[in-house]
Amino acid sequence: MKLLEDKIRQEGQVIGTDILKVDMFLNHQIDVNLLDEMGKEFYRLFKDKGINKILTVESSGIAIAVMAAKYFNVPVVFAKKSSHKNVGNDVFKAHSHSFTHGKDYEMIVSKKYLSEKDNILFIDDFLAGGNAAFSILDILKQSGANLVGIGIAIEKGFQDGGKKLREMGINLQSLAIVEGMSEANGVSFRN
Amino acid sequence: MKLLEDKIRQEGQVIGTDILKVDMFLNHQIDVNLLDEMGKEFYRLFKDKGINKILTVESSGIAIAVMAAKYFNVPVVFAKKSSHKNVGNDVFKAHSHSFTHGKDYEMIVSKKYLSEKDNILFIDDFLAGGNAAFSILDILKQSGANLVGIGIAIEKGFQDGGKKLREMGINLQSLAIVEGMSEANGVSFRN
Repeated sequence: MKLLEDKIRQEGQVIGTDILKVDMFLNHQIDVNLLDEMGKEFYRLFKDKGINKILTVESSGIAIAVMAAKYFNVPVVFAKKSSHKNVGNDVFKAHSHSFTHGKDYEMIVSKKYLSEKDNILFIDDFLAGGNAAFSILDILKQSGANLVGIGIAIEKGFQDGGKKLREMGINLQSLAIVEGMSEANGVSFRN
Repeated sequence: MKLLEDKIRQEGQVIGTDILKVDMFLNHQIDVNLLDEMGKEFYRLFKDKGINKILTVESSGIAIAVMAAKYFNVPVVFAKKSSHKNVGNDVFKAHSHSFTHGKDYEMIVSKKYLSEKDNILFIDDFLAGGNAAFSILDILKQSGANLVGIGIAIEKGFQDGGKKLREMGINLQSLAIVEGMSEANGVSFRN
């Protein structure tokens, strides 16, 4: 998606060879018009798939998911992150790890909001090694819900999360796939 | 706002006399059409005030803020919560406490995204004792940004946060003000 790639080139901040900060328009300050276009694009990519619910993860997935959900006219459910292991029995949960924050957490979704009747689009801001996505797959399996596809804003194509998910036959669509990046040369995208 | 009050009556869950769970449409699962109407209502209430930025707090404020921001055509900035005291010098920060989660945290906004040029609408999902709102006031004071108003989805009118903020002369608008609640009789609203 050219609009997003241009925005990343203009306002993204590369730190080292692995960190891409998009605080300016996605993860701290939010450009709602850009997000609206991203929501529209996810709708174009997944509109004929019978999706009845969009699943995301707090916090930074929420804005994108909500914008997309307006086009699909379906509710959003956001998975919560808890540092407590003891989260009760009325939830689906999966252990996960954030490399960004360097800590483990439990990903949690109430059993009330996922069931085998659901056709789910999972939307998230970033995909790198796929840690969050695999935790979501675990939760969906527990619930019996059907994963229709995964929509990612920015995929780090030089990490293996995307490759693994596609090899599983999952319909994974990323709006921008970063092929490589450096502080000197900025970001290059996969065509 | 009748639509929101009706939704709270129908789907809100009262626990004891103090906890109102709105997980079904606001805090875990999100009814995007309801949120869109809430965003529109915030726009009606604050549209002529020169607002150039909407500020909220992760996670559950983000969806409402983003929906409102579409109408105002302005960016959203969401304050982050950190359990670490040591958060660097490039942020405005305020100590805060969550009664819901029973723990202290630092509320943080990057210095890049707030300045004395900003006319801010602060939007949040709940107002009770006003802890989050007073932390936001602290951060706005540090930044020199001007607070134009506060828009709240659900105010617990039987706690004193709203009273304190209004006595300070702040333009506080809550879409639903809960006057009282009990498990037996449900929720009553202030007219």
